[in-house]
Order: sequence, then C-alpha cells, then structure tokens
Amino acid sequence: MNKAIITIQCPDQKGIVVTVSDFLYNYQGNILEVDQHVDEEIGMFFMRAAWELDSFALDKESIGSVFKEEVADRFGMSFDLYFNTQKPRMAIFVSKLSHCLFDILSRYYSGQFDVEIPLVISNHLELKKVVTAFRIPFYHLPMDKTNKAAVEQQQIELLKKHNVDFIVLARYMQILSGDFIQSFPNQIINIHHSFLPAFVGAKPYHAAYERGVKIIGATAHYVTEELDAGPIIEQEIARVRHHNSVSDLVQIGQDVEKVVLSKAIKYHLERKVLAYRNKTVIFY
Amino acid sequence: MNKAIITIQCPDQKGIVVTVSDFLYNYQGNILEVDQHVDEEIGMFFMRAAWELDSFALDKESIGSVFKEEVADRFGMSFDLYFNTQKPRMAIFVSKLSHCLFDILSRYYSGQFDVEIPLVISNHLELKKVVTAFRIPFYHLPMDKTNKAAVEQQQIELLKKHNVDFIVLARYMQILSGDFIQSFPNQIINIHHSFLPAFVGAKPYHAAYERGVKIIGATAHYVTEELDAGPIIEQEIARVRHHNSVSDLVQIGQDVEKVVLSKAIKYHLERKVLAYRNKTVIFY
Amino acid sequence: MNKAIITIQCPDQKGIVVTVSDFLYNYQGNILEVDQHVDEEIGMFFMRAAWELDSFALDKESIGSVFKEEVADRFGMSFDLYFNTQKPRMAIFVSKLSHCLFDILSRYYSGQFDVEIPLVISNHLELKKVVTAFRIPFYHLPMDKTNKAAVEQQQIELLKKHNVDFIVLARYMQILSGDFIQSFPNQIINIHHSFLPAFVGAKPYHAAYERGVKIIGATAHYVTEELDAGPIIEQEIARVRHHNSVSDLVQIGQDVEKVVLSKAIKYHLERKVLAYRNKTVIFY
Amino acid sequence: MNKAIITIQCPDQKGIVVTVSDFLYNYQGNILEVDQHVDEEIGMFFMRAAWELDSFALDKESIGSVFKEEVADRFGMSFDLYFNTQKPRMAIFVSKLSHCLFDILSRYYSGQFDVEIPLVISNHLELKKVVTAFRIPFYHLPMDKTNKAAVEQQQIELLKKHNVDFIVLARYMQILSGDFIQSFPNQIINIHHSFLPAFVGAKPYHAAYERGVKIIGATAHYVTEELDAGPIIEQEIARVRHHNSVSDLVQIGQDVEKVVLSKAIKYHLERKVLAYRNKTVIFY
Repeated sequence: MNKAIITIQCPDQKGIVVTVSDFLYNYQGNILEVDQHVDEEIGMFFMRAAWELDSFALDKESIGSVFKEEVADRFGMSFDLYFNTQKPRMAIFVSKLSHCLFDILSRYYSGQFDVEIPLVISNHLELKKVVTAFRIPFYHLPMDKTNKAAVEQQQIELLKKHNVDFIVLARYMQILSGDFIQSFPNQIINIHHSFLPAFVGAKPYHAAYERGVKIIGATAHYVTEELDAGPIIEQEIARVRHHNSVSDLVQIGQDVEKVVLSKAIKYHLERKVLAYRNKTVIFY
Repeated sequence: MNKAIITIQCPDQKGIVVTVSDFLYNYQGNILEVDQHVDEEIGMFFMRAAWELDSFALDKESIGSVFKEEVADRFGMSFDLYFNTQKPRMAIFVSKLSHCLFDILSRYYSGQFDVEIPLVISNHLELKKVVTAFRIPFYHLPMDKTNKAAVEQQQIELLKKHNVDFIVLARYMQILSGDFIQSFPNQIINIHHSFLPAFVGAKPYHAAYERGVKIIGATAHYVTEELDAGPIIEQEIARVRHHNSVSDLVQIGQDVEKVVLSKAIKYHLERKVLAYRNKTVIFY
Repeated sequence: MNKAIITIQCPDQKGIVVTVSDFLYNYQGNILEVDQHVDEEIGMFFMRAAWELDSFALDKESIGSVFKEEVADRFGMSFDLYFNTQKPRMAIFVSKLSHCLFDILSRYYSGQFDVEIPLVISNHLELKKVVTAFRIPFYHLPMDKTNKAAVEQQQIELLKKHNVDFIVLARYMQILSGDFIQSFPNQIINIHHSFLPAFVGAKPYHAAYERGVKIIGATAHYVTEELDAGPIIEQEIARVRHHNSVSDLVQIGQDVEKVVLSKAIKYHLERKVLAYRNKTVIFY
Repeated sequence: MNKAIITIQCPDQKGIVVTVSDFLYNYQGNILEVDQHVDEEIGMFFMRAAWELDSFALDKESIGSVFKEEVADRFGMSFDLYFNTQKPRMAIFVSKLSHCLFDILSRYYSGQFDVEIPLVISNHLELKKVVTAFRIPFYHLPMDKTNKAAVEQQQIELLKKHNVDFIVLARYMQILSGDFIQSFPNQIINIHHSFLPAFVGAKPYHAAYERGVKIIGATAHYVTEELDAGPIIEQEIARVRHHNSVSDLVQIGQDVEKVVLSKAIKYHLERKVLAYRNKTVIFY
C-alpha cells in the first residue's frame, strides 16, 4: 500500500486536529493512524498522521505545498512529509564491538528494518568481515588526534555521496565535532551504555560498578553538541547483583544496548519520533 | 524454630568457608542457609549463615565469644550475630506523604514484617491519624532552620528510650546531620525517588521530566553523610512516556518507591544486607 | 475544571474521527484528549475524547441526545458519556487477605483515586477493623454452599441501595454466579494471582511452584461467566528463583497483585478502558 | 586458569556441605565459587562448586573416582565433573527464522560463548548462507511426514560423528521423537515463544492476540517427551497493547526469544543449570 506520513509541530491552539483531519478527509485520504500530543508546559502541539495515498486526491509532489497553504501557514506549523515508497538511507558508524552491529544487520537481513544501508564507516578494521558478509560497503577511516577534522570531512563527503538520511553510532566510541553534528540535526542516533543522565561520558559500566548500583541500563538518543545530553529516544535497564564484576556488567549491558538501539532505529524509520528541545515525543 | 544468623566480613583467604562450616557442624548446628561472596577487586570476603539453635551445642550467650576465639580472630573477621527470638525494633520518620507509610504498616499489620515499631516521628501532623489507627505512638516534632539541632537531640533520646535498632525514612524530606547519621551507621534506610546516581537531591521527578527520560525509578539506600551517596540496597524503575506530566511521574513513581523501600526493609530485617564502603552485598 | 468524557464503539468506516471532532469543535468544546483505535481483524472502531464543559455550547443533559441524533445514529455507534462532577461509586469485596484492600484504601485516603467507596462487603470478619478505620461501612455476609444464592441477593440489594457503579474483587476468593455477573457487565474487576491464561482457577502459586516457572504474575480483568477468562485490563510479573518456596511466591506475588489491581481501577475510574468480546482497548 | 566444576544432587542430610568443602580444601583446591540449594519439599540437595586445578593435589583423571569413593558414595550422590579446558560442543537446529540463530552466532563470533559449534542442521535452505558465512558446516536434511524417522537417524549419526554434547533448537519448529529426546536427556534446549505454561503448542502469538493479553513472553526449556513441559531454564516477557497486531507481537516477541535463549545457553555452558523432575536449579 502506498502510504504518506506527516509529522507536525506548532504552538498549541484550538482547532488544529479538526483542521488537519478535515484536510485529509476532504482530499479523500483514508486515515490509517493519527496521534497528537500537547506539551502543556510550553504550549506546543505535536501530531503524526498516516494515510493511504492511492485514493488521495492530491499527487505526491503537491501535497506539501497545498498543505502549507491551506493548513500549516495558518497555524505556524513546521511539518515533515514522508512516503513509504522512499526507503530511508542509514549509515552505521562502528569501532570494534560487534553486538549492536550484528543486531542491526540481522534485522536488516530479515526485513524487519525497511531501510537501505549504503555504507558502514569505522576507524578500525575488526568488523570489516562482518559488514562485507552482508554485501555492504565498508570504509576504514583510521582516526587519531591529529587527523580528526580531515577524517570527519571525508566521512561527510561519503555520507553525501551515498545520499545518507541518518546515521547510527553503533558503539562508535568517538566524539563527533559540533560541525559534524550540525550537518545532521536530530539525524544521528547514539547508544550510550548507561541509563542517562547517570554515568555520562566514558566507562559507565566501571562507574556503575564503583557506585554499587542494582540496575544498569542503556539509552538511545539523538546526538547534540553537549555530550550525552541530546533528546532521549529509548531507555531500558537490567538488574545486576553484588557478585557481578565489571565484565559481567559489560556483557549484561550489551543485551540491553542492542535492543534499545534497534528499537530507537525502528521508531526513527517509522517516523514516530518528533524531537524538540532535549526531548522526544514518540507515537508508538 | 529458634534460629541464629551470623554475618561475616574479613580479608579473603583460603579456608574460611571450610572453617566456618566446620565450626557450625562440630557444634551440631543444622545449617539452614549459607551464602558467601568475594569482592575480588578489594580482596574482601563476605558470608552469611543461618542455623537451627535447638540442637546447637553452644548456648546463645556464649556463641559469640567461642566463635571469636576459635574462628574470627584467626581470620581477622568482624561479625554480627542475630537470633530470631529478638525482634528488630524499627522507627519510622515521615513528613506528609502517606504511600510508603501505608505500605510499611500494611505489611506490619499482615505479619509480613517480623518487626516491632515502637514509634513514628514526624515534623508534621498530617499522618498522625494513620499511625494511631495502627496503635503506634506518634511523636510530632516540628522542625525549622532554627531548632534542627535541638529537635535531632530529642529524636535521638526518643530512639534510645525505645531501644530502636534501625530507622526508616519513609519520604521524610529532611536532611539528617552528620552527628545523627553517625549514631546509626548503616542503620538508617532512606528511599530516594530516582534511580541513583541520576537526579541526586531535591525534586528528582521535576528533573526527570525536564530531561525527558523514558524511565523513572527509586532507590533505597543506607544514609551516609554524603547526600544520596550511601550504599544502595534496592532499585527499581517504571516506564514513562512523553504524555506523562510531572504529577503523573510523581504518581507512577510512588508505586515504585513503596515497593523498593519495603523490599529493602525486608532484606534488612532478614539480616541479608552486608554493607561495606558505598556498596552492599545482598544474599537473597 | 468541568470535564466531559465520551467513549465510542462502532463498525469502522471513513469519516468517524472527523465527524466526532467537528461535533465537539462546532459546539465550542476545547478538546483535552482524544484517542482512537481500529481493530482491523473485526473491523471495529473505538474512540475516547475528553473536553472542557464550561465553554461547551450544549448543556450536560442534552449532550447525549444531540450526539445521538447528529453523530451516533449515522455510524451505528454505542457510546457512554461521563462527567467528572459525578464521582464513580465503587464497592469492594474482600475475604481475609489485606494487601489489596490496604493498597486501594491508601490511594483513596491520599486522593489518588477520585472515587466514592460507599461500602465494603466480606464473607469474613478479619478486615472489619481496617475498613472501619477508614470510616467506610463494612457488611459481613458469611457465605457457604447452602446460602450462596440468598447472600448474593442481599449483596445485590446493598449495591443497589448504595448506588454502586462498579465492584472490585480484592482477593474475594468466591466465584460469583452468572446472575450476579450479568447484573454488572464489565463492571466487576477481579485480580487473579497468575499471568493469565496460565494457572486458571484455584491455587495458582502452588501450580506455578510445581511447574518450576521463573516468572509469576497477576492479572486484573473484568469478570465474565467463564472463570478467569474475561477481558484483561492489566498484567504484570515478577521474577522468582529456584530457592523461592510457595510462601515466597505468595509474598512476592502480593506486591504484583496490589499494583496491578490498583492500576486497573485507575484506568476504569478515568474511563480509559473500552471492553469488547474478551479484550480491552486501554487509552493510557 | 585451569578450572574444575562439579555439580551434585543427592537426598538432603547433615554434613554434605562440610564434607565437600573439606574434600576440596584437603586436596589444596582453591575454591572459586560454591552454591547449594535444598528443595525442602522433596528433600533433595543440590550443589555446584568451582575450583582452581593448578594447585589441586589430584590429577584431572582421578578426581572423579576419588570423589566417588571418599564423598559421593557416602551420601548417595550423583555428580558431574567438568573442566574448562574441554569446550562443550553445541549443535544448532533451525528452520527459516534467523533472529535466534544470528543472536547465537554473534555471541559465538565475539567470544561471549565459550563453545564449539561443529554443525548446524536445518530442514530448509534459507539460513545456509548465514551459517556458512561463519564457516560452520550446514546440513540440509529436508523432512516431511514420510521420512521423519529416517531423517532423525541421519541427524543422530551426524551429532555422534561430531561429538556433540548438547543441542539448541533455535526456532526449529519440528517436534522431536521420544527416541531422539531420550538420546540427549536434559541436553536439548528449546525456545518456546510464550511464557509457559500459557499457550503451549503451535501459534502462541496468535493465541495471545486472541486472548487479549497485555504481556507476551518466551521460555527456554529442556526438551522432554511431553510437549513444552520440560524443565524451564529462563523466561522473560514484554508488554504489548491493544494496538499491536499479531505481526507486532511476533516482532516484539523475537527480541525476547533471542535474549532468553542465549541466556539459557550461557547458563548451560557455564554448568550452572541442574535439572531434576520438571524443574531447574540455576546457580547464577
């Protein structure tokens, strides 16, 4: 089925839901899903709607401009339109750890992720074999303190060349520069191996062990310039006990990391995440 | 059944388990439970054993001294002995919120907690009716900045007068002084309404809301002089979503708080918690 | 704020959301919440909307008939209207176990449940003191095999006399007759102490222990004539291990039972549950 | 470090722990882990101990016979000895679904599973490429009603030829014959896609959807002749809501299945599972 999805943000006011519903209805759109949310504290309205395209009276190319004129401008909306005929293009950045990469690739393999993966980029060679076994191009761009800016430039060129829509840092272990991040606003998903905001930064499992916590966790979030402070998409935890060593925490945590990251990717792929400030609305 | 419990801490070395087991076995103790743990990182050994007293060849009063001479001194152990014939005496400190108090009292009422509650202390009057309905003495000691030291002195006298063994801060909302805390080392259990170490200090649900987390939590811990940094006994979490307001978080969180606090009390009552540094070993 | 809530069920077709939204909007209703769901398998549409009454152009008494004429009849809808000015009236049935009762009453006490509790009915006397401490009338109606029909008749008369809207079986331990159940369709909430459909019937913790499960659970559901087979409102689980005895399971399970039952009551009170066949739609 | 592990079962009686501890201590064994459990209901004792081999006074080959003579015979014990120098050999049986297979192979690849995988057997060809990418031999043995006994015979010969210790059914979807099962008592691990004992048999996600449950789950268990009734090793659940279709349940459930199965394999590999009757003791 050909399907369109629209996501909307605007200041809250009366009549938005009715107006959007009427718009879709009047152009013969068969509405499949519709969700809305108001952040009462800041007075912002959020909406997501999906509808069948086949019966729709507007053609794909003109929906945006007609909606802008008839609806969006009136309410001061910003909106995004997606069509399920265009598969999102996702780049994966990895270092040496394989658990998140395998989890993503196995979902890609089985068709659970409706996505194109035009390339994987790594600063190490360890995972090259895994990636090429899935017939995905692997780019090895070693990075150290001296060449970071240059390598990031190479990365951005590769991403552009491959028309990448968004990036997944699958335990990439490198901090991106502000310039890089600004090139992909709310389009870079990172997995951090703690239940943020606890244990920001490096070696969170060691810190969790030292603190003697009874739960550990993982957090998938959009990357912003402040480290580990971007909008959280998904979090999950696992229980640990006094007899668990740091390496136990690492292993237990990996099961949480991979599932949390893959859930976040799925929400992003299905256009269910609306990010604003340091928060997300997720219509699942 | 008359039962003894011993908890042991000492530097790790060969032969501890065998020696303690032999001690209990040779004096005809029927061992009911035995657990041990080694913290490899710091080389510390922890053990807990429970055995039937009726058939035991040593009388209650002399077990401690004989164990010290025959076992503990040899390994440099510190140990604690408990007998199930002596019910622990627990004081509860509350302010205005009732959910943790009700949860504790309902378990006390139904016999789930094998404990004496000689008194409840509060700086407010709101919960007096609830406490007295359970026929427990309620002491109202209002506190402000000017009288804190004096009121704490009154509290300590009441606790001594009632032979209190340990204290539960059931959302007490006041910070105890260092002097007070040192009078009850690892005998004051607090419930903090976040998954520590995230959101230390006041208003953690507001902070969680602002941060846009997808999970909230609660942490029961022993109180030490550093705020919210004492040994963690138990933690649990609940999922929240973008549509949950701060007051939703408060309500969802209360269900977590009360269950976590009551679990921590239960472990403490059953002598299953061994605290050291800022950690706990919990033999459940 | 004066608030109205409508819940709707009807065969799915185009234009329902738009029509209902237009209805509320045209009569100046400020829509506060709106959720919808389509059961694709059976082609049924479900909706819940809440709006401010103060600005609404229709008075409370006529909303139902106008909605019926202008909207409901056109789509073959069944619907229910609620106003937050009318507190629901809830009866509680108990036997001897206190944990669910305490949990409900403590939420009632703290104002978390916006409900009237005109009476508690029990076939035993054990919990009379608890109930009367909350100044709620307690009716002791002992029941055995010989007088079941007569006692149920007395119960129904009491419920009618007190204008009871719905009933909570807080570990009541008696099976209700078909006649009784039909008097309160989808208005009797039971808590069953297993994750249904596992361990239907009596002594589920014993059965769970015998089966050697690693998780236990509890299920809140509407009571229907088939035992433990009514529409499920909420379920939750807890982990258990090999060293847990049946009485451990009972105790661990009670924490799950009380939280699950109270959540189900809360959803019901907030008119968030739409029951159909042996299922529920829950708009939380 | 060279390490030995012993697991023990026998009727409960006084002095077992002491005697085993003394045995290990007297032969200079540095005990690394020791756990015990008593099933009070049936009076059975269970124990697991791990110790360093390098300093041990008995050589590997004679430990069993000396332990039998000095300890086991006295208490009527059955016991198993393992050495970490001998990697367990695991066969995997699959059909068409890849999620569990990928999860296992990715742990094998990263070294999380200390195991040999000499072969994968399937009645379909779909997963051949995945398996051979990991350089593991793949045997395609198509099966239908007419050739089941003959194919099982081929499977057993392959397993013997490859010295397989245990078998993992990673969503194999075929019911094994009693003869096959008896050849590998408590050495065949299956993943069933429900929280057993709910939804035994085929299509549990469809059944869960029909029943309207709010949680789904997965269960790893040893295979016995009664379908889905063998000793449970691990279980976990995930929450679902009214808007989740059967295919949502399938996808949500797959994340649970793969983690549960891999946990069970890990416990089995680490010799932490003691099975008896339809239960397991798991010393994790």
